[in-house]
Amino acid sequence: MNIGMIEAAAERLKGHATLTPLLTSPFLDEMAGRRVFVKAECLQKTGSFKFRGGWSAVSALPPETRAQGVIAFSSGNHAQGVALAAREHGAPCVILMPSDAPRVKIDNTRALGAEVVLYDRATGDRDAIGGALAEDRGLTLIKPFDEPQVIAGQGTTGLEIARQAAEAGVDRADVLVCCGGGGLTSGIALAFEAHAPGLRARPAEPEGFDDAKRSLAAGRIERNPRMDGSICDAIITPQPGDLTFPIMSRLCGPGIAVSDDEALAAIAAAFSRLRIVLEPGGAVALAAALFHKDEVEGDAVIAVASGGNVDPGIFRQALDRFPQL
Amino acid sequence: MNIGMIEAAAERLKGHATLTPLLTSPFLDEMAGRRVFVKAECLQKTGSFKFRGGWSAVSALPPETRAQGVIAFSSGNHAQGVALAAREHGAPCVILMPSDAPRVKIDNTRALGAEVVLYDRATGDRDAIGGALAEDRGLTLIKPFDEPQVIAGQGTTGLEIARQAAEAGVDRADVLVCCGGGGLTSGIALAFEAHAPGLRARPAEPEGFDDAKRSLAAGRIERNPRMDGSICDAIITPQPGDLTFPIMSRLCGPGIAVSDDEALAAIAAAFSRLRIVLEPGGAVALAAALFHKDEVEGDAVIAVASGGNVDPGIFRQALDRFPQL
Repeated sequence: MNIGMIEAAAERLKGHATLTPLLTSPFLDEMAGRRVFVKAECLQKTGSFKFRGGWSAVSALPPETRAQGVIAFSSGNHAQGVALAAREHGAPCVILMPSDAPRVKIDNTRALGAEVVLYDRATGDRDAIGGALAEDRGLTLIKPFDEPQVIAGQGTTGLEIARQAAEAGVDRADVLVCCGGGGLTSGIALAFEAHAPGLRARPAEPEGFDDAKRSLAAGRIERNPRMDGSICDAIITPQPGDLTFPIMSRLCGPGIAVSDDEALAAIAAAFSRLRIVLEPGGAVALAAALFHKDEVEGDAVIAVASGGNVDPGIFRQALDRFPQL
Repeated sequence: MNIGMIEAAAERLKGHATLTPLLTSPFLDEMAGRRVFVKAECLQKTGSFKFRGGWSAVSALPPETRAQGVIAFSSGNHAQGVALAAREHGAPCVILMPSDAPRVKIDNTRALGAEVVLYDRATGDRDAIGGALAEDRGLTLIKPFDEPQVIAGQGTTGLEIARQAAEAGVDRADVLVCCGGGGLTSGIALAFEAHAPGLRARPAEPEGFDDAKRSLAAGRIERNPRMDGSICDAIITPQPGDLTFPIMSRLCGPGIAVSDDEALAAIAAAFSRLRIVLEPGGAVALAAALFHKDEVEGDAVIAVASGGNVDPGIFRQALDRFPQL
């Protein structure tokens, strides 16, 4: 994993990924007590940064391998990112999802051209089913974060932030990143190491699911005690990745954990002050910037708003609970 | 009014206005039956394209004039755009609003550093009150659309669309523009005339308030029969401007009028498919692209999403009424 791979991924993504803006609002500056910049990656194709990693991985395959197709295990943003990336390459795509995944996620993934294969979470072994499918059809597995070309794709977000921050006159700031397995966080950190040494990536996570924060503090990989019970489902993973953790450990500042209510309040603030739609897991970095200001250093902060595929009921709840933001 | 003024405004706006993205979604393509591109100007500073015109006009003033301050008559997006532009120039700013304007608009405009002066709509003469204030204090009036430097600022949106469409491989398309007095529509049309002759600007308006559409069809300025009763309040004006209409008449394609329900449905689709927040007046162009496809020509359409300062109750209504979009 090195900066050359991220720069090569950026070349391959050119003209295919959306160059998402770095947004500002004087209202957010006031709330946070410093200048706030929001990298609106919820505006990326399929509504999250996952399209970058999907495109990077699919485009890096040798043409014959790609033509046989790819497979991903996901019912969320990774599924949609890989599905659209594969379709835009004309490559077959299988997405393996638990049969109890929300109908709308199954439908949306199918609408993006993927073949959705369902398995019973209680009786089926996902890895075994997916492995057999992959072998039968010659499909390449695209892992969600612990995969060099996926990290390289997510890291292109960091190249853009480095350039956009410099244009805004910011060369020193904490950059808060919504963190699940660490693909986005570690990719961004590598981009900063090479191109913006004054920017420091820091993971933001939900309280109770702050495996990255605790792992960074302990200097070794720590697991989450459980996998359910957070509204930030998009970024709940058992633990940081074997590839991503050493990068985060070398380059990242300490993690910040936010409550579900803070994530909802950040959704409301992003709605009224930035006019973007965030999902809870995509709002934790902004929540950290707005509501944990004592844990942030410097006179400017950058928050990566990583995804916007929100359940409408959750979104309504955010607007109802925090109408004043 | 000429392209040189728009290009000069773009130079002045550089590093101050947000370069808003041109967004896409395969789901919208399918709904519209052609490729859809959305210029997300709701992501502009203060939540609408009005910041461009405000900045252009304030920055074009001689320094001594600017130092005395500016004044605008508006309770909406123009007020916020001018207020922030003035503040970023260190110039005093007075906004004259009717005393029955929504509290949140008064507060937001004050929070952007403007002095808000209220007048009684029933008994006060806005132009007389504003004129006296301007003369007393040496303030320069920034008109909302019929003002060359304002049109020049809005026209910078067209320069960006021309470049972004070319990058996306689109050199021929209808470009639907939410139209009130025509500042944005005429500015964009002038930018296309010089830089993208295959792009054709067309006004989009609410049904019953389609003065631009009817004026273009008649070849002379026609008025709206009334000023209230639309949810698209941001783009309701009595008639096209004396400066903007001749430009639109020379360069624009025919107008398209959409219903309030279509505007609400476009808000819902923009929420779930693009993750942007639109207000009804900022959604009529997308509504025209999605629901009036027979009135649009070509295999690609570009819709300008001009503003996102939506009342939360209206937004909720859009999500409730059109959950499937």
